[in-house]
Amino acid sequence: MTSTRGFACEEFRNRTARAQTRMHTASLDALLLTTEPEVRYYTGFLTRFWESPTRPWFVVLPASGAPIAVIPQIGASLMASTWVQDIRTWAAPDLVDDGVSLLCDTLHECVPEGGRIGIAQGHESHLRMPLRDFRRLESALVGRPLVEDGGITATLRQIKSSAEIEKIRAAVRCSEEAFSKVAQIAEKGTGLDTVFRRFQMQCLAAGADCVPYLAGACAEGGYDDVISPATARRLQDGDVLMLDTGVMRDGYFCDFDRNFSVGQPSVPVRDAHKKLVEASARATEIACAGRTMADLHNAMAHSLGEACASGRLGHGIGMQLTEGPSILPDEHTVLAPGMVLAIEPVIALPDGKIMVHEENIAVTERSADPLTTPHCAEISVLS
Amino acid sequence: MTSTRGFACEEFRNRTARAQTRMHTASLDALLLTTEPEVRYYTGFLTRFWESPTRPWFVVLPASGAPIAVIPQIGASLMASTWVQDIRTWAAPDLVDDGVSLLCDTLHECVPEGGRIGIAQGHESHLRMPLRDFRRLESALVGRPLVEDGGITATLRQIKSSAEIEKIRAAVRCSEEAFSKVAQIAEKGTGLDTVFRRFQMQCLAAGADCVPYLAGACAEGGYDDVISPATARRLQDGDVLMLDTGVMRDGYFCDFDRNFSVGQPSVPVRDAHKKLVEASARATEIACAGRTMADLHNAMAHSLGEACASGRLGHGIGMQLTEGPSILPDEHTVLAPGMVLAIEPVIALPDGKIMVHEENIAVTERSADPLTTPHCAEISVLS
Repeated sequence: MTSTRGFACEEFRNRTARAQTRMHTASLDALLLTTEPEVRYYTGFLTRFWESPTRPWFVVLPASGAPIAVIPQIGASLMASTWVQDIRTWAAPDLVDDGVSLLCDTLHECVPEGGRIGIAQGHESHLRMPLRDFRRLESALVGRPLVEDGGITATLRQIKSSAEIEKIRAAVRCSEEAFSKVAQIAEKGTGLDTVFRRFQMQCLAAGADCVPYLAGACAEGGYDDVISPATARRLQDGDVLMLDTGVMRDGYFCDFDRNFSVGQPSVPVRDAHKKLVEASARATEIACAGRTMADLHNAMAHSLGEACASGRLGHGIGMQLTEGPSILPDEHTVLAPGMVLAIEPVIALPDGKIMVHEENIAVTERSADPLTTPHCAEISVLS
Repeated sequence: MTSTRGFACEEFRNRTARAQTRMHTASLDALLLTTEPEVRYYTGFLTRFWESPTRPWFVVLPASGAPIAVIPQIGASLMASTWVQDIRTWAAPDLVDDGVSLLCDTLHECVPEGGRIGIAQGHESHLRMPLRDFRRLESALVGRPLVEDGGITATLRQIKSSAEIEKIRAAVRCSEEAFSKVAQIAEKGTGLDTVFRRFQMQCLAAGADCVPYLAGACAEGGYDDVISPATARRLQDGDVLMLDTGVMRDGYFCDFDRNFSVGQPSVPVRDAHKKLVEASARATEIACAGRTMADLHNAMAHSLGEACASGRLGHGIGMQLTEGPSILPDEHTVLAPGMVLAIEPVIALPDGKIMVHEENIAVTERSADPLTTPHCAEISVLS
């Protein structure tokens, strides 16, 4: 698979400009960004090094102009390959002052006394720096309060550019190719842990950069859990195998699953699968600009009827495996072109079991653009 | 590869008891845990679902008794398979109250008025919940302040049990097997991105559960960066290829690298590799109980002489790719049996290039137990 890596500078300039317009409206003089997706969104800084919790990383987005990176020395070379030019580094980890003074100086430069600095504090966010250092920063910023960012970055990230959608599509293609090989890597007697390993290998062989997420389950007539690691349980007749993967390519995720019946499916499993596919089709049909996340939830809940499991039935995807907004009955965010969603109906089966089906779509003005090739109503069968 | 999965209950009972002894000394009535390794350390809750940032997860460790899980409903089944019995759930994500009331009620139950609740706030820590919710929690806990945890969990985690060390050893074996195949997957003309994909596949084929981290570089006569993602650059004569991997097996990481010369190495590259291997041997020789992290740093710095690059030269490993303490000149933490370390000397080469070598060891009373098979002085050659 070939595709262009990264983005043109224009992409980051647009993101920055849009954020700055909203900052102006919200009377924010800077944004302080601390997490991987926030930093990457405005800078393009892409590395798996965030897996190491040791070092904090900061980006300051001033009221005008490009982002300023305040980062550990180890990242200077990579950050210099992005569009960011103002890169300030310290020799992290520093046991005494791990970037706090450097960050504080930078914020003093960008923000006048009395000015407000926005940080993400809402749903799905966290602060990726030690709380002790955050408290030090707060007191050193005298007269420059750290306040809620009004969800500016989270809201901007909900609407993907066409370049972003192409990256998600490329990730989907890797997973779809891996799913097309499941019959070759999983059969009666294969251990679920072996299936997991082989499936990840197939994703990589298909062009994934890495496989940050794979969950799944395998149990008779449905499963009761979708987040457990694989056990050594061997696939057996009557099992439903579910694989749910978040493959990353060039910094973007897909997130969808497929179910397989080991041997011929029972009538309840066959029916459940049909209902799930039907429910995701109902949500996909109406997923266009102007509808709400609640509408999608209601379409699936209505389609599934009493069998609909409680909880959310999907979410945004993009730079992260799951992003806001959630498909929930009380989530009234209005769909807009560029939103990319995982449509994920869940059906409740007897004995506390469930089955989950998941497709990925992009919202357009008048319809949904399916990123995954929607699965047919019949559950796939492994021999 | 076969090995026992998980731990006996005794492992978690011991961790909990040790924490509670220290909590008593520090006058803490509970610990509040929010991050993946903290939650897993005391409960055994192992899932890749943390990749999704949507839901907060909480564990309360009371002054006596077992941990209490305060978690999203989606994790109830998996948590019930651990030794934790008191499992309280809510229907997350809840847009109005995402577990805050439930957590607050639980803390009110466990902590008398005036009691202190410890949370990790120091180096390498963060708070994995929205800051807004944390502030809500703080005010709802009237008279029960959230204070620094004195590094209790971080310090306990530094000393691995023999069962933990065996898991790290198993992760090392997966990586070593993958490294033994590099000559088969990388040769002149192979793109670095292809090498990365194939190497991850080899790790999985060797028994890794997943490959959360792979970094590396490939450039002539050394590299200037060790955290960048792979480019399509094709290996060519004179290049040094470095692969640095963090493979996970049963929840534990290894973290070590290997260097390869594409074609015969230049004299400077050959010498640099010898010096790096020599420096890591010097640190390994003295890595026994009673020495300090600074001693390890100084041994490597002395061995490398003026060529020693600045910055840390290693760190703890275990449930995370990198853990404290760091091998730094001002890190005076005393080595103790059970510490597992990445020994990671870095050498500076002309033109701002570097080379890095990394081995994993376990500290014992009188010597270091090498977990990786130490590389020989001669750099491996790819044809």
